[in-house]
Amino acid sequence: MFTRYRINLFVLPVQSTRMDAIVVGRGESSPRIAELSRPEPGPGEVLVRTLRVGVDGTDREVLAGTHGGFPPGEDFLVLGHEAVGVVADANDTGFEAGEVVVPTVRRPPESGTNEFFARGEPDMAPPEACVERGIDGAHGFMAEFFTSPAEYLVRVPDDLAEWGFLVEPVSVTEKALEHARASRSAFDWDPESALVLGNGSLGLLTLAMLGTRGYDRRYCLGRRDRPDPTIDIVEALGATYVDSRQTPVPEIPAAHESMDLVYEATGYAKHAFECVEALAPGGVGALLGVPDSWTFEVDGGRLHEELVMKNKALVGSVNSNAGHFEAAVETLGDLPAWFREDLVTGIYGVDEYESAFGAADDETAIKTAVQFSET
Amino acid sequence: MFTRYRINLFVLPVQSTRMDAIVVGRGESSPRIAELSRPEPGPGEVLVRTLRVGVDGTDREVLAGTHGGFPPGEDFLVLGHEAVGVVADANDTGFEAGEVVVPTVRRPPESGTNEFFARGEPDMAPPEACVERGIDGAHGFMAEFFTSPAEYLVRVPDDLAEWGFLVEPVSVTEKALEHARASRSAFDWDPESALVLGNGSLGLLTLAMLGTRGYDRRYCLGRRDRPDPTIDIVEALGATYVDSRQTPVPEIPAAHESMDLVYEATGYAKHAFECVEALAPGGVGALLGVPDSWTFEVDGGRLHEELVMKNKALVGSVNSNAGHFEAAVETLGDLPAWFREDLVTGIYGVDEYESAFGAADDETAIKTAVQFSET
Repeated sequence: MFTRYRINLFVLPVQSTRMDAIVVGRGESSPRIAELSRPEPGPGEVLVRTLRVGVDGTDREVLAGTHGGFPPGEDFLVLGHEAVGVVADANDTGFEAGEVVVPTVRRPPESGTNEFFARGEPDMAPPEACVERGIDGAHGFMAEFFTSPAEYLVRVPDDLAEWGFLVEPVSVTEKALEHARASRSAFDWDPESALVLGNGSLGLLTLAMLGTRGYDRRYCLGRRDRPDPTIDIVEALGATYVDSRQTPVPEIPAAHESMDLVYEATGYAKHAFECVEALAPGGVGALLGVPDSWTFEVDGGRLHEELVMKNKALVGSVNSNAGHFEAAVETLGDLPAWFREDLVTGIYGVDEYESAFGAADDETAIKTAVQFSET
Repeated sequence: MFTRYRINLFVLPVQSTRMDAIVVGRGESSPRIAELSRPEPGPGEVLVRTLRVGVDGTDREVLAGTHGGFPPGEDFLVLGHEAVGVVADANDTGFEAGEVVVPTVRRPPESGTNEFFARGEPDMAPPEACVERGIDGAHGFMAEFFTSPAEYLVRVPDDLAEWGFLVEPVSVTEKALEHARASRSAFDWDPESALVLGNGSLGLLTLAMLGTRGYDRRYCLGRRDRPDPTIDIVEALGATYVDSRQTPVPEIPAAHESMDLVYEATGYAKHAFECVEALAPGGVGALLGVPDSWTFEVDGGRLHEELVMKNKALVGSVNSNAGHFEAAVETLGDLPAWFREDLVTGIYGVDEYESAFGAADDETAIKTAVQFSET
């Protein structure tokens, strides 16, 4: 009570102990504003004042109830896992107030920490060995403030603060590309052609990243008609747009070429199998989508033979660790300014959160974020 | 002509210019003896006197006409790709007469050499960029003599000469395990459990190899009743036999445990998909079988989700290169003597070749070879 009194007397209104958050309640399928207590950092934790939090397909799956879950014993979940903020209270952690930081997503489960966290690889934990902030079992970052153990915060240069909410999705691709490349490290692999399945924001970010990594020929699969802003970005990146309605994945080698790398960012389960047919000898398919159960026919004999006789691989990849976040900060700084600006089609205030989440219904929207504070 | 004259005058009858070979003719499905001209080594080639040549499932697929093909313009194929022999004419290649050698399998196609051979990775060539001796497009080693460019011969210690025909199958597993491990090299992977699908000779060789590579818990899937010599070997290796008729692959985690590594050596296409469900988080399935086209239903959504959410991988692997052969020579020397002796159930003379190939119909037979010369 004394603390609260003092705050009310001497400090700015932003330091009220109440704060706005964007949440989804049990049984609900739309986000709403909730007023929550501002969190206080425990030992080893940093208090972060949120700048921006991005919205992606996973958030929409969480809202639809097809992915993730509520924190144990809570009747709501604070949304958001793509955050950037400013250290408000470094709390003797080694950070300094004012530093721009991005939080990683996974935390140890209620049952306690485990080997994956101990070795800095929470991204390799199976679902039961972690929670995911804003997604599964732990509150996210769509609030005016959040706390995090210092070890789960990654520093971002000040001049990237406004784009920092893109660090998380970029880190997911950093990991997937690292694992895909590792899978080809037992031989001399010099990939030149890549196909990104999906022209959402993750697909476009990946396409941009591949452009700086030696993939001379890049393709992006979507199912949209021109004119379309994602097709414009694909082509401005020097890549080729492939309309899946005209050229299904298995026909891409005949129509274009076979691919050293296929990056699946659609969550469309048939793509996980069809991509084998699009791969060049020695190629790898990186799988990132999380589909629901769906039974269908495949020519399993042919796919098996293709994998073996042409030394192909499929690598599933989820989440990312602090090392991938650090790599993503570098990568984000190297992406062309025009690309970031064209990719991010809307930054919305907290009171406009419905527009940030509603972007899926708007074909001119690509990537959106909610802004909690400008600086 | 002078050379030939001198040979006829002064050397042993074994150096007759005619020799026996075991071949399959076009339109035939059984091997037969053919009398061929003894080959003469060209520049850079070594003449090898054959000791033994192993028989495996690929040979049976070649006989059945489901795999491989005849050399261009020839009406027969000399069989055999698992050979060991002795240098008969080193032909100024750096080898010495009397050295024990094993030949690799792949050679450049008629159209000429290519990048895969240039960098010593013919195993990574797609089918159209290579021929395979004894399998596809080039004569094999089941003859009293064969020639090979020196670069495709690997030295074997004299005391392994009688087992040298096992170097090729061991090399196939060396490569598959190298690629599987590489695919997991982007994180801290410390595999302990392994499941080998298939209790044929390649499956058993792999099971023995895994025993010396830190896989504390090993399982081998088959579909045979006890008593059975392959089950005896599985258990003598300290592994657990799993009868697929009682415990299908997807049920293995519940019945036993989930597997860090699954090694598929059955060519049964459903195994390529089912193995995903047997894998532990972060696990990898190494696929080696070469099935025919076969359409069936899979829960592709669930498989896709398993691959992604648990960071699983599938890696196809075929053939092996000289480096894998060199590793295989080391490995073979380290395998227990009892294992090699129990694995190899029959060594047959050239006139008994039908017994060597007929072993597939004999449940007491595991690995057989044809012996062309004792020393």
